[in-house]
Amino acid sequence: MGNMGRWEPNAQERLRQAALELYGERGFEQTTVAEIARRAGLTERTFFRYFTDKPEVLFDGSDALQDGIVARVADAPDSAAPLDAVTSALEATAEFFHGVRDYAVKRQAVIKANAGLLERELIKMARLASAIALALRQRGVGEPAATLAAEAGVAAFKTAFQRWVSEPEQQDFAALIRESIDDLKAVTAGR
Amino acid sequence: MGNMGRWEPNAQERLRQAALELYGERGFEQTTVAEIARRAGLTERTFFRYFTDKPEVLFDGSDALQDGIVARVADAPDSAAPLDAVTSALEATAEFFHGVRDYAVKRQAVIKANAGLLERELIKMARLASAIALALRQRGVGEPAATLAAEAGVAAFKTAFQRWVSEPEQQDFAALIRESIDDLKAVTAGR
Repeated sequence: MGNMGRWEPNAQERLRQAALELYGERGFEQTTVAEIARRAGLTERTFFRYFTDKPEVLFDGSDALQDGIVARVADAPDSAAPLDAVTSALEATAEFFHGVRDYAVKRQAVIKANAGLLERELIKMARLASAIALALRQRGVGEPAATLAAEAGVAAFKTAFQRWVSEPEQQDFAALIRESIDDLKAVTAGR
Repeated sequence: MGNMGRWEPNAQERLRQAALELYGERGFEQTTVAEIARRAGLTERTFFRYFTDKPEVLFDGSDALQDGIVARVADAPDSAAPLDAVTSALEATAEFFHGVRDYAVKRQAVIKANAGLLERELIKMARLASAIALALRQRGVGEPAATLAAEAGVAAFKTAFQRWVSEPEQQDFAALIRESIDDLKAVTAGR
């Protein structure tokens, strides 16, 4: 059952993979940390070295995603309009999502099947919008423009993400972001 | 201590008022249902006839608000563009909020002070957006336009509501909705 020594290569990745398999097979609620560790050929103690709890396996990427978006909003050219700064930052997440579409599809299925996880995902998205709004205010954007640009950007992000996981032929995440922003502009222009 | 008989005039309103006072004075967590009932001059049993739990006192209006908005989106003229249908429906909530600003201000302060209540409020807003998107799809609006118009509308609603509770001189909720929608249009047009 693998090397049980102190240093486990790819332990975090193996635990994540095992958790996602089990959540998909048995359901999130029915899966225990002991089962995840066993499937990964590791110990519970190792699990808790990487994740605080069962849901954390699904959400530990959110902070890195948020930090990357916020940093790019801050770095946008001074001349960029608020929504353009947000759009560029969201397009850049294509790098973050590169090569992990299979993982994202499975993760989405697990989250959709559990009301508590779905709420946690909604809260993460709301926090992302708040963090983007703060980054815009720090660029000198006033309110309510900062909040509205952030919320509009996150709405477009959610739409693009939904298409990315549900439309297998759509692999270009940055293109999906641009399309969603264009759709949003059409909707708010009254078309 | 009031009439303890079976029929209590305005029992629900008295319980709501007592709860809000206590949540404000002692904090939401520190307040018990027994204390709320005592302050209202009623029994715990009466409390549970009107509310399932402590947070419900703060959120029981959300369903009526959502139903009213959804009904008005459905009733908008066939010719109305998606965001216009949403805007009219949100403007009409001015009637719902008429005369309850003091209550709304106190409620907002209690919610802001408690992470769990803040999350519940975010989830209610996300559900509102989903319900509006569904009402738009039932009008024949396609995706992603339905979801984007709904999310944009709810973002404008939150902004208008925030201004309504924080700017005492701004009493006209419908006017605040129109201003927020105009601000949103300006932001998405790149201004």
